[in-house]
Amino acid sequence: MINKLISEIKKKNAPIVVGLDPTEKLIPDYIIAKHIREKGETLEAMADAIWEYNKGLIDALYEYIPAVKPQVAMYERFGLPGLKAFEKTVKYCKEKGLVVIGDVKRGDIGSTSAAYADAHLGRVKIGDTSIAPFDEDFATVNPYLGVDGIRPFIDVCKEYKKGIFVLVKTSNPSSGEYQDKNVDGRPLYELVGENVASYAEELMGDEYSYIGAVVGATYPEQGKALRQIMKKSYILVPGYGAQGGKGSDLKYFFDNDGLGAIINSSRGIIGAYLNERYSEYTEEGYAEAALAAVKDMKEDIASAVGI
Amino acid sequence: MINKLISEIKKKNAPIVVGLDPTEKLIPDYIIAKHIREKGETLEAMADAIWEYNKGLIDALYEYIPAVKPQVAMYERFGLPGLKAFEKTVKYCKEKGLVVIGDVKRGDIGSTSAAYADAHLGRVKIGDTSIAPFDEDFATVNPYLGVDGIRPFIDVCKEYKKGIFVLVKTSNPSSGEYQDKNVDGRPLYELVGENVASYAEELMGDEYSYIGAVVGATYPEQGKALRQIMKKSYILVPGYGAQGGKGSDLKYFFDNDGLGAIINSSRGIIGAYLNERYSEYTEEGYAEAALAAVKDMKEDIASAVGI
Repeated sequence: MINKLISEIKKKNAPIVVGLDPTEKLIPDYIIAKHIREKGETLEAMADAIWEYNKGLIDALYEYIPAVKPQVAMYERFGLPGLKAFEKTVKYCKEKGLVVIGDVKRGDIGSTSAAYADAHLGRVKIGDTSIAPFDEDFATVNPYLGVDGIRPFIDVCKEYKKGIFVLVKTSNPSSGEYQDKNVDGRPLYELVGENVASYAEELMGDEYSYIGAVVGATYPEQGKALRQIMKKSYILVPGYGAQGGKGSDLKYFFDNDGLGAIINSSRGIIGAYLNERYSEYTEEGYAEAALAAVKDMKEDIASAVGI
Repeated sequence: MINKLISEIKKKNAPIVVGLDPTEKLIPDYIIAKHIREKGETLEAMADAIWEYNKGLIDALYEYIPAVKPQVAMYERFGLPGLKAFEKTVKYCKEKGLVVIGDVKRGDIGSTSAAYADAHLGRVKIGDTSIAPFDEDFATVNPYLGVDGIRPFIDVCKEYKKGIFVLVKTSNPSSGEYQDKNVDGRPLYELVGENVASYAEELMGDEYSYIGAVVGATYPEQGKALRQIMKKSYILVPGYGAQGGKGSDLKYFFDNDGLGAIINSSRGIIGAYLNERYSEYTEEGYAEAALAAVKDMKEDIASAVGI
């Protein structure tokens, strides 16, 4: 799957992943109102609104971007109907040729991580029938429990040619509270990065490993160090745009060939129509505004990174 | 909700939580076979099997235990139908007066943790209607992202009188890989514990805080230290039984009054009928075997802890 991700990045000339993180504030009012008229003030109405909103975005963007990253929390928040919209979104994105990174940040003791890995990347066997429950291409994984919590994901990646991005240095303001603590002479995130580098060796694609890492755009200096530590790993970079990460900060996350990193933007793209910069677009033009924002983001990264 | 948990623990004289973690290996074959006959080799059949299995356990145990802890991964593994069985299980347990600890181990950047908190402990507003999506009483939370990832859960706990257990020292063999690292003169888990103690002060129930911690039974020495650091926090203790934690190790997790800790057992209880010790029970008697195991666990803890 890492090979497909890289080939799509090259083909579309865009190291960009769009975060499909629908909220009431981002979904245009007319879409929500329509579905409330149809199904009342219910979780089902919100799930239908999410699906309509996502489909509009996907249809507008799929030819221009290699990948999407739905944040499962935004769907889980609307209960079972919300998760049904998640499942539908994953399936539709894959039909459109997009690589799907499930931003699930799961991680638990071994047997439980194995269940999450089956749920999101693998398959379960029922009698003689094997079924893929959510079937994303990649998932994000939390490392706090150590290798026990990561190993089952790696095993499933091996079996089904899927990939993971392990949280190394997250984009949020308090990420340093534990991640930056000095352990044995370097920050904890570097120790996690060293371990990711070692897992990465185990499961190589053509150029990069199936085992990648998450490093926030908001921490470019740390990104620079981690790029050197995890030479074979793709870095998934959240925090660009709405969270404050700038284009000029991104060059450190890439290798010299312009590969090695994929930059995520969520609100900055899917909520572009709410941004003054794109005020020529109405609510109804939310997907076109998103496409304009993707094109601008592509230029911003290209000029900063020199690719 | 912490007050209710403690009053149920006292009433039933059992500092015990049963992990409702259904897997193909634990659910009796006859139950799985029955539902496959009805719905084929589908996720729906497995979800129905999970529900029948859980209902049998809950009906047998609810008068004897204060709380259950469904591990959401075991349900997520069977996709949407599995999560429907999770939702049904939570609801039924609450109808039976049980406190429900959703073992979800979520944790993300602020806005995303807020979505998870809404999903599992809070409510979402759709138009003028407020709906509680999964509505557990407690949730477990991963601290790797720092306070940003925990604060939204605390806010929701304040609003809806719910509680959380923050992962401090997990029960798995590799938990020390990061958690035991020395930071500023003490292990990382102690730093996390100190922070939990400070959150705990903010949101006190009558005797203990709504903000608790997870510390594995497999690490009694660490439990002893953490009991002192987090004086106001209930400790949720996994790892007893199948994972290797012994009754004699548990005394360190309790306060002198026999409160302050709740011990989880999953496989040891819900799969008791597979254990030689309970070989008098057949598959059909799985729930009675579970009750026998609960009674034995209660005695084991009482004699070790002296309560």
